[in-house]
Amino acid sequence: MKIVFAIDSFKGSLCSLDAGRAAAEGAKRAIPDAECVVRPLADGGEGTVQALAGGMGGELRRVEVVGPAGKPALATYGVAGETAVMEMAQASGITLVSGAERNPLYTTTRGVGEMIADAMAHGCRRFVVGIGGSATNDGGAGMLQALGFRLLDASGSELPCGGAALARLARIERGPDAEKLAGCEFRIACDVTNPLCGPNGASAVFGPQKGATPEMVSALDAALARFAQVSGGDAAFPGSGAAGGLGFAFRTFLGAELKSGVDIVLEETRLEDYVKSADVVVTGEGRLDAQTAMGKAPCGVARLAKRHGKKVLAFSGCVTDDAAALNQCGIDAFFPILREVTTLERALDGKYAAANLAATAEQAFRCFRLGAH
Amino acid sequence: MKIVFAIDSFKGSLCSLDAGRAAAEGAKRAIPDAECVVRPLADGGEGTVQALAGGMGGELRRVEVVGPAGKPALATYGVAGETAVMEMAQASGITLVSGAERNPLYTTTRGVGEMIADAMAHGCRRFVVGIGGSATNDGGAGMLQALGFRLLDASGSELPCGGAALARLARIERGPDAEKLAGCEFRIACDVTNPLCGPNGASAVFGPQKGATPEMVSALDAALARFAQVSGGDAAFPGSGAAGGLGFAFRTFLGAELKSGVDIVLEETRLEDYVKSADVVVTGEGRLDAQTAMGKAPCGVARLAKRHGKKVLAFSGCVTDDAAALNQCGIDAFFPILREVTTLERALDGKYAAANLAATAEQAFRCFRLGAH
Repeated sequence: MKIVFAIDSFKGSLCSLDAGRAAAEGAKRAIPDAECVVRPLADGGEGTVQALAGGMGGELRRVEVVGPAGKPALATYGVAGETAVMEMAQASGITLVSGAERNPLYTTTRGVGEMIADAMAHGCRRFVVGIGGSATNDGGAGMLQALGFRLLDASGSELPCGGAALARLARIERGPDAEKLAGCEFRIACDVTNPLCGPNGASAVFGPQKGATPEMVSALDAALARFAQVSGGDAAFPGSGAAGGLGFAFRTFLGAELKSGVDIVLEETRLEDYVKSADVVVTGEGRLDAQTAMGKAPCGVARLAKRHGKKVLAFSGCVTDDAAALNQCGIDAFFPILREVTTLERALDGKYAAANLAATAEQAFRCFRLGAH
Repeated sequence: MKIVFAIDSFKGSLCSLDAGRAAAEGAKRAIPDAECVVRPLADGGEGTVQALAGGMGGELRRVEVVGPAGKPALATYGVAGETAVMEMAQASGITLVSGAERNPLYTTTRGVGEMIADAMAHGCRRFVVGIGGSATNDGGAGMLQALGFRLLDASGSELPCGGAALARLARIERGPDAEKLAGCEFRIACDVTNPLCGPNGASAVFGPQKGATPEMVSALDAALARFAQVSGGDAAFPGSGAAGGLGFAFRTFLGAELKSGVDIVLEETRLEDYVKSADVVVTGEGRLDAQTAMGKAPCGVARLAKRHGKKVLAFSGCVTDDAAALNQCGIDAFFPILREVTTLERALDGKYAAANLAATAEQAFRCFRLGAH
């Protein structure tokens, strides 16, 4: 019996691989001769770098970049061979700016570009970038500038940081690294389908949560429209509006592919190759709810497993009332790992969570085997 | 597929039958064509009357009796045909006396006798009595007096209430109901094996928790020894020391059989008849721990099921770290029903617990079936 484990991180408690290892330990206790294979899982958001770098045998690099509000930020990304795995939030994330600094007229994605440039300088030519949680609304202009693109106004002066300045954009010049960039592959993990502009665009939908007033939303929306017009990109392409328009820049200037985070992670980790030969696939995440059923990582794993007719179990820190939907998305049975009434603080303790996960997996696989005999 | 449910009450939250029904509902959701049979389960302690009366199609009766410290107490017992099901704690329990009233020199089991007399007056001839949780140390003298026995001192005067007076016991006379009592069957659910007297006896071991000082323990131990001597009963018989010596009185004067609570409950509910034709047996209780493994009700069910080679699943409000021992006592797999971090108060809410139990049983049976196909 072969069991493949691909469990998303239990946020605040267990990383993906530790969760997989704990569940595998429990399964082994129930079925000692089971072959257990632990693979990483993430959804393109927080934890993706750690999961992919760990699961692909890579290493983590830290680089100092310009943060979204201009202060330095220490960004971590993963490197495995030619591939770099990044989360835009590490360089330009909303958590890097305090409330008072949250002004999307000026916040910049420059740090993302610096992170990419750093990886290129170290030989990376493939880039997997998760673009959730941004503090920015600059259409990716800052990233492009950091990569050598010149964004000029009518007088030929370089535009300053931030989305607002794009209202004055007159033309764009490619920089000295343009050819090298053209030889790179960019895969963007993006779970929203918003266009760049308009009522469903980056500024209107995501601007307010980054500190934009209605007036700022109008100004930024017009500025991004100008950016689209000058660049000739497809502002309507689904995902262009992701991360304050960063999706648009990646696609228009770097030839990036935009795809759901979990699909990219599944491809990068080649999970399908492992699933094909498995009898049971185990997935899960910190919290299983109806949102999980609507497309987060465990459901992506379940769909993949079901395409190959595999059995799917899931574990989670907790489940919500609406979790029954999980049984409709391919998860055959799911189990929360709580063993007793306890506090949230203790429930999140990594050692405790790992022990509970192992114990729950043990009983679930005992139950599974019971049905078989 | 036939599933038999025999789940002990989730104390403070779900009675035995409600727990069984909730689990059955969950199982039905997973395996719609399963035949689900819900049977009562109890361990002879709290909840036994409710479980057996409910499970045997009986009814509850309330009777006012003399409480352990002399105040009136309203005792509930169950009646199903000729059988009465009682908990001694309803009439003479420790929870019926406040701290200041806890004086085992004087507390009495008279109320137990009154409860039995009431049931006899209503036609009962079989008695199943759980004898845990007593406030008394009177060797069952009060019960005997309520049933017509006369406990006399050397001058021929009737002894007053309480264990201390037994030091003056000279002889015992049977009362007018002696013959009727001889025609009755008494089954005593008793999970301790203490003798009546000595260092492991009723007074020394259980006296202190009922308020006895070391001096009182000595006096009571001597008084119970006197009682044994005058009555000619076997003070060394295991269980004689249960409930302040009530076990001794039941056995010596009423010909009672002393047996573990769960075994009596299993026999009274004829669980074996149901288990024989089952594919899976489901048990559980509010809390599964190493104590459960050492002989509480769910483990009794598991042992019975395993004698017939049946598969056993268990559910509980919580499980403890040492619960792995359950897998050694016949429970093939067990699952706590907690779904999220919550307070003890909410965890004990009956509706919430029933919903969680149903949801957990559903997933467990989905997992079970998954193994089968």
